[in-house]
Amino acid sequence: MTQPPHDPHAGHGTMVPRTKEEIENIVKRLKRIEGQVRGVQKMVEDNRYCIDILVQISAIQAALRQVGMQLLERHANHCVAKAIREGSGEESLRELMNVIKQFSK
Amino acid sequence: MTQPPHDPHAGHGTMVPRTKEEIENIVKRLKRIEGQVRGVQKMVEDNRYCIDILVQISAIQAALRQVGMQLLERHANHCVAKAIREGSGEESLRELMNVIKQFSK
Amino acid sequence: MTQPPHDPHAGHGTMVPRTKEEIENIVKRLKRIEGQVRGVQKMVEDNRYCIDILVQISAIQAALRQVGMQLLERHANHCVAKAIREGSGEESLRELMNVIKQFSK
Amino acid sequence: MTQPPHDPHAGHGTMVPRTKEEIENIVKRLKRIEGQVRGVQKMVEDNRYCIDILVQISAIQAALRQVGMQLLERHANHCVAKAIREGSGEESLRELMNVIKQFSK
Repeated sequence: MTQPPHDPHAGHGTMVPRTKEEIENIVKRLKRIEGQVRGVQKMVEDNRYCIDILVQISAIQAALRQVGMQLLERHANHCVAKAIREGSGEESLRELMNVIKQFSK
Repeated sequence: MTQPPHDPHAGHGTMVPRTKEEIENIVKRLKRIEGQVRGVQKMVEDNRYCIDILVQISAIQAALRQVGMQLLERHANHCVAKAIREGSGEESLRELMNVIKQFSK
Repeated sequence: MTQPPHDPHAGHGTMVPRTKEEIENIVKRLKRIEGQVRGVQKMVEDNRYCIDILVQISAIQAALRQVGMQLLERHANHCVAKAIREGSGEESLRELMNVIKQFSK
Repeated sequence: MTQPPHDPHAGHGTMVPRTKEEIENIVKRLKRIEGQVRGVQKMVEDNRYCIDILVQISAIQAALRQVGMQLLERHANHCVAKAIREGSGEESLRELMNVIKQFSK
C-alpha cells in the first residue's frame, strides 16, 4: 500500500474512506453544533439566564454524543471490520478500545 | 412582576449578572470549543482517520462538560444563593434540580 | 468527635426524616441491586460469557443511577427546601452542589 | 460447533475462559460492591443523612464502572482477539459494539 507522502491518515489503521454523502451528513451535524456553540456565546454576552444557557449546553452535549457514537459505530462496522478481514484486526481493535476508554472518562 | 419588554431573562428566577471578566472568560472557552468543532469538520472533509476524529470529539465533550459545570456552580453559588436570601430560594432550587436532571440523561 | 450515640446525622445539614414507606421503597430497590450484584458474581464464577455479564453490569448501573437520582431529588425537595425555609439554605445548597460534582466525575 | 447441552455460553461468541486468579479478583471486587450496597441499605434504614448516602452511592457507581471496564477490556483483548484470529471476528465485534452502546445510554 504505497501512499502519497501527505496522506492524512498515514501510519494509522485501516480506513474505509467516507463517501460524499457520509461527509455531508456528518458536516451538517457538526455545523449545527457549531451554530449552537455560537448561540451560547451570544447568550452569555447578553447576560441571558444561566439555566437557559445550561439547557443549551446540555443539548449540545447530547448532539455531540450522538455524532460521536455515529462515527464510532461506522468506524467499527466499516474500518475495523475491513481490518479484521485483511489481517490487522487486532491492531484496529486495540485502537478502538483505547478511544472507548477515552470516552468513558 | 412588570419587566421591560426586552429583558433577557424575563419570567426567570433570580440572577446575579455576569461581570465583564466572567463573560470574557466563558466566551473565550466557548470560542475555543467552536474552533475545535470547526476543526473536526475539516478532519471529516479531509477523510482523516476516524480514531483521530473521535479523540477530538472526546476532547470537545470534556471541554463542554467543564464549562457547563463552571456555569452551574456559578449559578448555584451566586444566583440561587441570592434567591435564598431574598425569599425565592425554593423556586430557584427547583429550576436547578431540573437542569441537573437534564444533564444526567 | 463525641456524638450523642443515636443521633444518626449529627453535625449535618437539615434533614426531613424518611417515612417508613420511603425507607421500605428504597431498601427494596437496594436489595434488588444487591441481588443483581450477587448474580454477577455467580456468572463470573460459572465462566459465563463476558458480554452477558457486561449487560448485567450495565443494568445494575442504570438501577443505581435511578435510586441515586431519587434520593437526590427527595433530598432537594424536602431537606434543602426545609433548610431554605429555616435559614440554613446556603449551607445545604453548598453540600448539594458538592455531591452533584462528585456524581459528575 | 457442537457444544455440550449445558455449556454456559452456548450460542455465544468466542470466549477465553477466565483463570482461577481472574475469577477470584473479579469476585473479590464484586463482593466489596455487594457489601457497599448492603451498607447503603443500613444507612437508609438508620435514617442517615441523605448526602452521606449519596456519596456512598457515587462510590459504588465508580467501583462498578471500574469492574465493568476491566471486564470489557479483558473481553476485547482476549475473547474478541481470539475470535479475530479464528475467523469470527466481525461477529464478536458486533456484540462488543452493542454492549458498548448499552453502556453509553
